[in-house]
Amino acid sequence: MDVTVSEVGPRDGLQSIKRTLPTEAKHRWIAALAQAGLREIEVGSFVSPKVLPQMADCAEVVGRARSIPGLRVIALVPNLRYATMAFEAGTHVITIPVSVSEPHSIANIRKNHAEIIAEVAAIVELRNERFPGIKVETSLSTAFGCTIQGVVPEADVLRMASAMAKAGSDAINLADTVGYANPAQVRRLFKRVRDEVGERTGGAHLHNTRGQGLANVVAALDAGVTTFDSSQGGIGGCPYAPGATGNIVTEDLVFLLESMGLDTGIDIDKLIAARAILAEALPGEALYGHVPAAGLPKGFTPAAAAGRAA
Amino acid sequence: MDVTVSEVGPRDGLQSIKRTLPTEAKHRWIAALAQAGLREIEVGSFVSPKVLPQMADCAEVVGRARSIPGLRVIALVPNLRYATMAFEAGTHVITIPVSVSEPHSIANIRKNHAEIIAEVAAIVELRNERFPGIKVETSLSTAFGCTIQGVVPEADVLRMASAMAKAGSDAINLADTVGYANPAQVRRLFKRVRDEVGERTGGAHLHNTRGQGLANVVAALDAGVTTFDSSQGGIGGCPYAPGATGNIVTEDLVFLLESMGLDTGIDIDKLIAARAILAEALPGEALYGHVPAAGLPKGFTPAAAAGRAA
Repeated sequence: MDVTVSEVGPRDGLQSIKRTLPTEAKHRWIAALAQAGLREIEVGSFVSPKVLPQMADCAEVVGRARSIPGLRVIALVPNLRYATMAFEAGTHVITIPVSVSEPHSIANIRKNHAEIIAEVAAIVELRNERFPGIKVETSLSTAFGCTIQGVVPEADVLRMASAMAKAGSDAINLADTVGYANPAQVRRLFKRVRDEVGERTGGAHLHNTRGQGLANVVAALDAGVTTFDSSQGGIGGCPYAPGATGNIVTEDLVFLLESMGLDTGIDIDKLIAARAILAEALPGEALYGHVPAAGLPKGFTPAAAAGRAA
Repeated sequence: MDVTVSEVGPRDGLQSIKRTLPTEAKHRWIAALAQAGLREIEVGSFVSPKVLPQMADCAEVVGRARSIPGLRVIALVPNLRYATMAFEAGTHVITIPVSVSEPHSIANIRKNHAEIIAEVAAIVELRNERFPGIKVETSLSTAFGCTIQGVVPEADVLRMASAMAKAGSDAINLADTVGYANPAQVRRLFKRVRDEVGERTGGAHLHNTRGQGLANVVAALDAGVTTFDSSQGGIGGCPYAPGATGNIVTEDLVFLLESMGLDTGIDIDKLIAARAILAEALPGEALYGHVPAAGLPKGFTPAAAAGRAA
């Protein structure tokens, strides 16, 4: 596999939708995604059920997802307390959101920079002591700009990436939380982060709020990124960033990568079939995506589209 | 100016819409686009008014557009007869669609390859004799794939590009008529065409049918392309290619380019204001675009977004 598509719909998507999907429907959807070839799925977040009742069954969802062979099960956690629950539930990878914009960090998880850095260090320490097999990732939110702060200086991103590496984060992802990124910036910032933290440089979490999502993927590929977050049907966004909607659509992302000749391990037809489960479970909810609407090109095979035989 | 955005909405967009926009409304829209900084607009096509009654006023539209200072006025023509009309109307640039897929060429303009090559040569000859100031461009349709033929071999594109250069076409554009292109292909094919026809290599006409439009723009920029077709609100497509809809959206394209630090000469706020004219003139018609819906990022300036001062 050349590139990993990391599906975040069951977490980022479902937590943005008021309605709570029953555990059984979540599992059916996650199983169908895995069946389509997805090898990494962010299945939920361990957070207060008062704030996000949609995620109250996260431990059970993780437990069932773990039974799917070959699937890396990811969960989001905001702090040490919920990280402990995620570790105990047997999550393979936890991801901690860390806002480069301090006002966004305070609005989102009520922690300033010093506090979240200390929290990540404490989570890594707990992992090292009691759960050595589990991977700890951090996701640098608002790395490309912030609806509260506006422009986010690249120096701040590098400083936070370095702090995360020092705290022991195994992978440091960059997130365009509010859809402000452009390809020149994505290309440059991933390279600068790699210069700063080397192999700890993680994946790209890009949004399509301003229609630039896949353009930014192309730039990230150029900068050596090999893991991309996306959500089926483009569901989800960031509930604490006003006006920010729109993860990039898994179906369109997989088509992009496969048609470029990159191997994602994903069967697009099966992926589109998994969408039906979501559509049925969430009647009336908007599902996005151009490829599901337009279909695959006539005579499409990844090799032919990439012109490798031309 | 680093990059030219060539607006095709008044031609490609309006000819795809059943209703005919009154000449006065066309002119108001074109003038507003020019006012926003667009320096190249494809204002119509010289074609049979029986087939496309929406374009019956093309000579008048060209005449009025010519009165706008600094605007390059482009019109599409399918053959020598209509090229003559376009030349006589004072069009600055004519563009001739030439399908690399022969079945598409026959469906679209009822000419096989030999016939269209001869037609282009005759048009260039007429231009050379009687209208020496006018630029003759050809646009290689289905260069990235075809809904009728399926895969279009790159060798066929290179052969047709070479034939167009030999026939005297001043610029040879590549068009993803049906939204099949991917960034790897775009990057490679533009480079190969440049190797074949050098400075006659023209711009990119990309569609967003499968959501890949702006991703393909990023790839084309890498390959040295400096002119991009798009339509305001994403109106239009190719009426003879079933299922093909969706020019890339001018508003989203300009945001992409400007945020990358490229100078388009276009004021995004004025561009979005021009959209209101279209919305008013075409009530009920779907207008696309993420940037008009989401707005510009907080604190957005092209320089800040591109991080040139970071």
